[in-house]
Amino acid sequence: MDRDRIRMASLESKIVTAEVAASFIKDGMTIGMSGFTKSGDAKALPAVLAERATREHLKISLLTGASVSDEIDSLLTKAGVIARRMPYMGDPTLRKAINAGEVMYVDQHLSETVELLRGHQIKGIDVAIIEAAAITEEGGIIPTTSVGNSASFAIFADKIIVELNMAQPLGLEGLHDIYIPTLRPTREPVPVVAPDSRVGLPYIPLNYPGLPINPDKIAAIVITNKRDNAVKLEPADDDTNAIASHLIEFLKHEVKMGRLTNRLAPLQSGVGAVANAVLHGFIEGPFHDLTMYSEVIQDSVFDLVDSGKLTFASATAFSLTQPCWDRLFANFDKYKKHMLLRPQEISNHPEVIRRLGLIAMNTALEADIYGNVNSTHVGGTHMMNGIGGSGDFAGNAYLTTFVTKSIAKNGKISSIVPMVSHVDHPEHDVDLLVTEQGLADLRGLAPRERAKVVIDNCVHPTYKDALRDYYREALTRGGHTPHVLEKAFSWHTAFSQTGDMRNAK
Amino acid sequence: MDRDRIRMASLESKIVTAEVAASFIKDGMTIGMSGFTKSGDAKALPAVLAERATREHLKISLLTGASVSDEIDSLLTKAGVIARRMPYMGDPTLRKAINAGEVMYVDQHLSETVELLRGHQIKGIDVAIIEAAAITEEGGIIPTTSVGNSASFAIFADKIIVELNMAQPLGLEGLHDIYIPTLRPTREPVPVVAPDSRVGLPYIPLNYPGLPINPDKIAAIVITNKRDNAVKLEPADDDTNAIASHLIEFLKHEVKMGRLTNRLAPLQSGVGAVANAVLHGFIEGPFHDLTMYSEVIQDSVFDLVDSGKLTFASATAFSLTQPCWDRLFANFDKYKKHMLLRPQEISNHPEVIRRLGLIAMNTALEADIYGNVNSTHVGGTHMMNGIGGSGDFAGNAYLTTFVTKSIAKNGKISSIVPMVSHVDHPEHDVDLLVTEQGLADLRGLAPRERAKVVIDNCVHPTYKDALRDYYREALTRGGHTPHVLEKAFSWHTAFSQTGDMRNAK
Repeated sequence: MDRDRIRMASLESKIVTAEVAASFIKDGMTIGMSGFTKSGDAKALPAVLAERATREHLKISLLTGASVSDEIDSLLTKAGVIARRMPYMGDPTLRKAINAGEVMYVDQHLSETVELLRGHQIKGIDVAIIEAAAITEEGGIIPTTSVGNSASFAIFADKIIVELNMAQPLGLEGLHDIYIPTLRPTREPVPVVAPDSRVGLPYIPLNYPGLPINPDKIAAIVITNKRDNAVKLEPADDDTNAIASHLIEFLKHEVKMGRLTNRLAPLQSGVGAVANAVLHGFIEGPFHDLTMYSEVIQDSVFDLVDSGKLTFASATAFSLTQPCWDRLFANFDKYKKHMLLRPQEISNHPEVIRRLGLIAMNTALEADIYGNVNSTHVGGTHMMNGIGGSGDFAGNAYLTTFVTKSIAKNGKISSIVPMVSHVDHPEHDVDLLVTEQGLADLRGLAPRERAKVVIDNCVHPTYKDALRDYYREALTRGGHTPHVLEKAFSWHTAFSQTGDMRNAK
Repeated sequence: MDRDRIRMASLESKIVTAEVAASFIKDGMTIGMSGFTKSGDAKALPAVLAERATREHLKISLLTGASVSDEIDSLLTKAGVIARRMPYMGDPTLRKAINAGEVMYVDQHLSETVELLRGHQIKGIDVAIIEAAAITEEGGIIPTTSVGNSASFAIFADKIIVELNMAQPLGLEGLHDIYIPTLRPTREPVPVVAPDSRVGLPYIPLNYPGLPINPDKIAAIVITNKRDNAVKLEPADDDTNAIASHLIEFLKHEVKMGRLTNRLAPLQSGVGAVANAVLHGFIEGPFHDLTMYSEVIQDSVFDLVDSGKLTFASATAFSLTQPCWDRLFANFDKYKKHMLLRPQEISNHPEVIRRLGLIAMNTALEADIYGNVNSTHVGGTHMMNGIGGSGDFAGNAYLTTFVTKSIAKNGKISSIVPMVSHVDHPEHDVDLLVTEQGLADLRGLAPRERAKVVIDNCVHPTYKDALRDYYREALTRGGHTPHVLEKAFSWHTAFSQTGDMRNAK
């Protein structure tokens, strides 16, 4: 075995096949797996578990950092292995099982899962499966392309199975900053005071803060050799570019008004085409010495670093296309000066988010005229992916922005509705709403003022009159937040009954 | 003038009548007033402003800590002085004006108002009116029975009018701990690590952290001599006692399971009869060395201190009945060892709440079968009071509890409904739901599991079958969070049309 990969010689005896390692996993157990947006997830054990389930009854609770590869969620769902799943997912097969009530899905703020585990408020982790680039001399685990919940899963688990992935380069070492909050009632402040604050260890210590590493917890080591699945990026289009442009113009205005400087504030951005378009927008324009304190580092962040505009990005995972993975792997020395990965409870920690004063930009599924945002439920009932970190950021950022295209399905759906069919982010937490039509600045506005600016600025022309009609009727009913309750979801029911919100009465 | 009250001699020349002081306040200004739950609010200026409005056009934006006395909100509303109001209120006259759309009310998390002001994201404070017990040798203001937003209002304001209230005893000095976060981008951690952490000054420094006091900002001093308005407590009844009892039994169970010790965790409690019943419940029973990190210190806290059960209570204001005010004023030496008052952005700071791991207990107006909570809007449209600090606590506490009686208006309203008509606290943030019927422990449950436990444990017998029927029909529609969207508000519309939710179809 490569001594660079397993630096504690006594652990070499733990190397086994994936089949042998999987024997530690029993029916009914709670399993914590590494992985966050397909990065650093388990490559070998899931397939073995799926295969075993064809021969024996095997149901587990599966916890991860966030979404993971299809080879995990899709495969394990098809095999009937997943009884319970948290805190986030993005797989179509699993989504279907969740919406059919076959998998109990607990949609959680991404900062909270390990808090609940640490407080023994949810069932503990029996076995943790953690992908590693290497194991240190003392038995610490060097993670790969995500940190996610791996550090705490390893700390809480009775047994740890390490997937040592030879395809994850050793150049990843030094990218991680593993800080775990001390236990209550003597918990200390999280000492992060800037995106580039290094406050922890470069490896996962397998034990609570202050206690020695216990390498005996490593029950098995499985050697793998498979790169992460790359993501595919939807290309930018006129609408995503328009959204990005509205937001950039707004930020320029904030600078002009003296509320921000051209250094802005640490940026947080969700993933996807809009987010990439917004981040690309920063390459041109007057902003400089930007920083990022976010969940995920995506392609556009590398462009921002290369352009000299972004000095540092803190996140919990990469989420990259294949060319960008290659770019990172060929240039560790360059990029490691500008990036680090933290546990997701720190990347998403309310304490740090409030302290740093983030500009948070996330995607809404739908929003309503008062600024309430639905991030998760299609038609109020069917789970899309999950709330992810959007609530951690929305509740605590300096500037909370939600973006969405104003229509979907060729205009059959308006993303701005009379009342959202599910609330993930109450209007108290929403500062800006941006569509390709324009931007609504909701700060300091009462609901009746918000309705006006949202309808005027964000709604697609197809729906503007109908929304004005709704609001006018609502005003006749009065109230701080006027509504016609029996018609509040008429757009949603029109869509479910006729396939087009424009048929709402 | 009493040298104990104005210790900086040069400020004596600033003593004027309330009428003269009020002349600093002009039409269109933003005024920040001290006061939180009728404690430490302005006693003289509001009446003068109301009187002036009978002679001239006078409209202001009024910011306070939270609710204040009727003599302020009611009087100024009747006089047409309030154009805009934030962040919280509880006055019937003002409520009516808000719901009629006559006053623009911005319902805010109580920790956020001064963050928005500090970031210049809402219009700044022109004049601050701060009740004081005394002014120090350097010009610092010693607040009275609340801190609220007074410290930051004084820092941000162009001019300060001090209402020096001779009826507020000097014994209040030393009760306050004024810590203001440093400015971004170099903001430091808030150093509070326990309810009794003293991290600030005993007076308001009138200036940003690290800068000298600028007593020239004190434009006028008005002498008043009037005690705070006492609160009236609704007496406990069988239902409030049952709610308290369910919660206490639950906490005993948590101790038994090893998740808590008999010291529990710092308690946060909303105000009112249920809260008082719960806190009284701690006097009996196995708990000891309790602490509180809350917004408000109410009567029951004094009983807990006297019983030896509670060692320390941190809050931003008192909210007391007359006998309890007398008890405090007669025993400062005793109670000051066990209590302090902080700015509300610190009493409600997400950072500190998450760090300390609070047990948060607040009142719901209504909740739904999935655990979403409405704290503010009657029938989804009409503002009751405001979200207050409940969102600050709910999003960050170790254990987030909402309590409500299961029915209202003699059973014509069920507090547990198919879908709440307004969401202040999404299900992600709600751990426990308690009614007199029982307690639903929602931790780690998926929505379909939550629905079962909420219906089984919390719903009044009158409504149980109807809610089961709704849920059964919802299940036929499928989804992660099943609903019959066209019937989701049928209970609310039945109430508004027939006066009884039981008429819902």
